[in-house]
Amino acid sequence: MTTDSPKPAATAQARPVLDFWFEFASTYSYLAAMRAEALADEHGVALRWRPFLLGPIFAAQGWSSSPFNLYPAKGRNMWRDMERQADELGLPPLARPVPFPQNGLLAARIAIVALDSGWGPDFVRAVYEAQFARGLSIAEPAVLREILGALPCDPEAVLVQAGSEPVKTALREQTEEAIAHGIFGAPSFLTADGELFWGNDRFERAVAWAARRR
Amino acid sequence: MTTDSPKPAATAQARPVLDFWFEFASTYSYLAAMRAEALADEHGVALRWRPFLLGPIFAAQGWSSSPFNLYPAKGRNMWRDMERQADELGLPPLARPVPFPQNGLLAARIAIVALDSGWGPDFVRAVYEAQFARGLSIAEPAVLREILGALPCDPEAVLVQAGSEPVKTALREQTEEAIAHGIFGAPSFLTADGELFWGNDRFERAVAWAARRR
Repeated sequence: MTTDSPKPAATAQARPVLDFWFEFASTYSYLAAMRAEALADEHGVALRWRPFLLGPIFAAQGWSSSPFNLYPAKGRNMWRDMERQADELGLPPLARPVPFPQNGLLAARIAIVALDSGWGPDFVRAVYEAQFARGLSIAEPAVLREILGALPCDPEAVLVQAGSEPVKTALREQTEEAIAHGIFGAPSFLTADGELFWGNDRFERAVAWAARRR
Repeated sequence: MTTDSPKPAATAQARPVLDFWFEFASTYSYLAAMRAEALADEHGVALRWRPFLLGPIFAAQGWSSSPFNLYPAKGRNMWRDMERQADELGLPPLARPVPFPQNGLLAARIAIVALDSGWGPDFVRAVYEAQFARGLSIAEPAVLREILGALPCDPEAVLVQAGSEPVKTALREQTEEAIAHGIFGAPSFLTADGELFWGNDRFERAVAWAARRR
């Protein structure tokens, strides 16, 4: 083996890791998910996709719903901003799922299963597209079953696994880990050296921070 | 007069206007204020500086303080994010005024007076620097008097005018106008065609929007 022979495995391992924490009900997590891989690749950063639930975090802050519902002026501005940014990113016209926020529990449990396979990010993007480009209810098992049907898996087996105790526990623990890291909203980005960035608008900075610490 | 002679007055009038709504206590308004003129000039946009008070808006939402105090994880992240962005912009290391948020009422009244003169933006930047670069209390008349002393004005006359009924009324009306425009946080940017952008991280988009609608 010559010294300049390619070592793809070692190169892949050498990529700095950035944890991408997302919640399926979160509008700005949608924007982040749709551009995540291109942005990470551009900076040579390896993304770790980390689904979690905002519900328990919001409840602990005394919020019974999304702040975008609790504070109407903030909500109106968010929906308009989402329209503008979806347009800017070349995404389909924004659809507003009813109700908002959607219950993303089952989708998040499936994501735990999916992210152990090769089609995890494809599943995540498909759920966001169903919700925010097609306006479908991602709390509906039928919607998730349809998404799984287009992916290289056995949908029924995945649904059974998603309902198993180890997966339920894994999602619960992941949410507790998010709280322990000081995460309070989604999307959030955490570098290996502990820098926390909140919001899709901080994604570039998070990736750049991870890349320079390689 | 030849047809290609410069018409500076007409050119200045033709610049599209962007309203820059800011609150002195707001950390991200500081970042926006420090880069506002360069960004607006770059896009050929005329900025209208609009001081207002967030206190009445927060109170109407049931908040007794800044959300950065009410939600500690959000607050910790904001201060760290501000440190990172101050560094990125080449600003001095961030100082945290005590208490936070500062009472910006007197500074905002002075700004109403100052923005009718030629040194309005200089006053605004000096107040933000005193607060977030030097950690001074901008509720202190002595701090504001010192700032005015370095500007081309009669500080005592300005302070008297800032305490007059017309100025108090003007600031109150400006805050009511902000609410009527759907403004719920600072900084906010409003284009002539009614597009509202919230946050320092939307400043580039707001300026670009204003510029393309010229």
